[in-house]
Amino acid sequence: MDKVLSGMRPTGRLHIGHYYGALKNWIELQDKYQCFYFVADWHALTTNYENPEDIIENRKQLVLDWLSVGLDPEKCTMFVQSHNIYHAELSLLLSMITPVPWLERCPTYKEIRNEQSNKDLSNLGFLSYPVIQTADIIMYSAKYVPVGEDQLPHIEISREIVRRFHNMYSCEVFEEPKGLLTEVPKLPGLDGRKMSKSYGNAILLSEDLSEVETKLKRMKTDTNRQRLSDPGDPALCPVFDYHKVLSTEQERAEITEGCTKASMGCMDCKKILIKHMFALLEPIQERRNKLESEIDNIDDFLKPMQEKANLEAASMMEKVRKALKI
Amino acid sequence: MDKVLSGMRPTGRLHIGHYYGALKNWIELQDKYQCFYFVADWHALTTNYENPEDIIENRKQLVLDWLSVGLDPEKCTMFVQSHNIYHAELSLLLSMITPVPWLERCPTYKEIRNEQSNKDLSNLGFLSYPVIQTADIIMYSAKYVPVGEDQLPHIEISREIVRRFHNMYSCEVFEEPKGLLTEVPKLPGLDGRKMSKSYGNAILLSEDLSEVETKLKRMKTDTNRQRLSDPGDPALCPVFDYHKVLSTEQERAEITEGCTKASMGCMDCKKILIKHMFALLEPIQERRNKLESEIDNIDDFLKPMQEKANLEAASMMEKVRKALKI
Repeated sequence: MDKVLSGMRPTGRLHIGHYYGALKNWIELQDKYQCFYFVADWHALTTNYENPEDIIENRKQLVLDWLSVGLDPEKCTMFVQSHNIYHAELSLLLSMITPVPWLERCPTYKEIRNEQSNKDLSNLGFLSYPVIQTADIIMYSAKYVPVGEDQLPHIEISREIVRRFHNMYSCEVFEEPKGLLTEVPKLPGLDGRKMSKSYGNAILLSEDLSEVETKLKRMKTDTNRQRLSDPGDPALCPVFDYHKVLSTEQERAEITEGCTKASMGCMDCKKILIKHMFALLEPIQERRNKLESEIDNIDDFLKPMQEKANLEAASMMEKVRKALKI
Repeated sequence: MDKVLSGMRPTGRLHIGHYYGALKNWIELQDKYQCFYFVADWHALTTNYENPEDIIENRKQLVLDWLSVGLDPEKCTMFVQSHNIYHAELSLLLSMITPVPWLERCPTYKEIRNEQSNKDLSNLGFLSYPVIQTADIIMYSAKYVPVGEDQLPHIEISREIVRRFHNMYSCEVFEEPKGLLTEVPKLPGLDGRKMSKSYGNAILLSEDLSEVETKLKRMKTDTNRQRLSDPGDPALCPVFDYHKVLSTEQERAEITEGCTKASMGCMDCKKILIKHMFALLEPIQERRNKLESEIDNIDDFLKPMQEKANLEAASMMEKVRKALKI
């Protein structure tokens, strides 16, 4: 069975953007592939080294979110990156053969430094990030890595590092990973911008439903529709992006008609959305509540999966050391 | 008892330049400090990643050289860097807080790249070298690191990384290491240039004594002294540098007189040197022969010391992770 690897940084509770952008896909993948999903806490440090104090708590919340949406310990292997220090060993060994210019030329390197200009990202860890990520991926011979378009250059670096290693040491130790591009729906934040916890425009998977209702009721709509009697345009309305994901085709047709003909108000339109959002979140939150009461220590819970990942890594590292004759 | 740490790259059998430049000092230090001496095989990869094939054999020869000159497992801890992967974990964590410009500005970074222009040293591992070295040092709370003058900037980087870590995470986990500068005698190669195995001008500690004798007999002397009847100048003669290290004051006085007055020939001068060189090397080689017959597997031999080092590292890493809250 082919292997898939993906990870998320433990930066806080997940929102519905994460769900539709990645998790829904992860849940499907766990039935088709041998999947490794990891908490990328070292990656979080590459940009957030000044404030690591929430990592332990975020790690727990992240795994609870994963489990509550349906990632299944019987089907996939979930583990914590920093609890498998072979990742550090492999990163170090790969750093020996990775030219710095490959990393400097990586488009995200300058983009993120510009975007996050309030942070000092001149640190070596941030420059090294694609090497650490390569170690994560090739450690498990992952054939596919579900990524967004913007992450493709990183996969390309991983492939180049693998080829360089194989050429230099005349071996075939690793799998050359491929990006697995998945069509993801556009799901803007409540204000129409990109959904992000830091913008305060997200709906968290674990958010209190009454709070979700309030947020959706206040959610931005087509700004040209000032009065109920004004016709609106669903194509300009962020609420309709949610309907595309959550509602039925029949409902979307009714909403489109009601909106463009000004026969349905925004509040009625949102009521349909709220119904579907509740239907999505209720079972997730039910599962989460159950898990929270059952799982005392998340590390203990992860232990069998962590051990499985660490064993695989140990066996890969033996091959790597042998190839390097070290 | 204060701790000392130092390492050597496994690049081949050691020569008398290593002995007088470092090992003699190491032997003295093991009586005064708790010493950790490590085989820096990952460091060897930072510049020699294209040809790692001799590392395992060189590792063995290095430790045999150490033992044969008198490093004592009862007194110091000898271990292999790559057999303690906590060094990779700490390097990775330190890379998060180390600014790349600190590394680029390190004087040896450009120097060595220029010196070894036949090698591609644009690799990330070479840039990261002072960070890996810092991890090696501070892992054991080493207070002193015996270094040559050229290595002082690296110790300075280590001190800066420690201070940055302590400030950033409001902790006091590490010892700020100090360079331990030791006066070492000048010991040129047989041709008067710097002694280096790659120049073919070295006398190996394990070299056959008849070969040593031949080499010393052919060794370069004061080139102005062409004939026995020409007076020579010991200050211009590499052989006299050896006498400064190996012979008695009385002998040096006689040699100086004989050379400058052309009353002693170069061969007679060298005979005195050969006598002393044999007296140095014979017991070293005797011990080496004994060790070679006794030690079947060098890793097994190192095991108790390796375990001690790894245990210390494990306990340090617990403190580090706690400080980082990761």
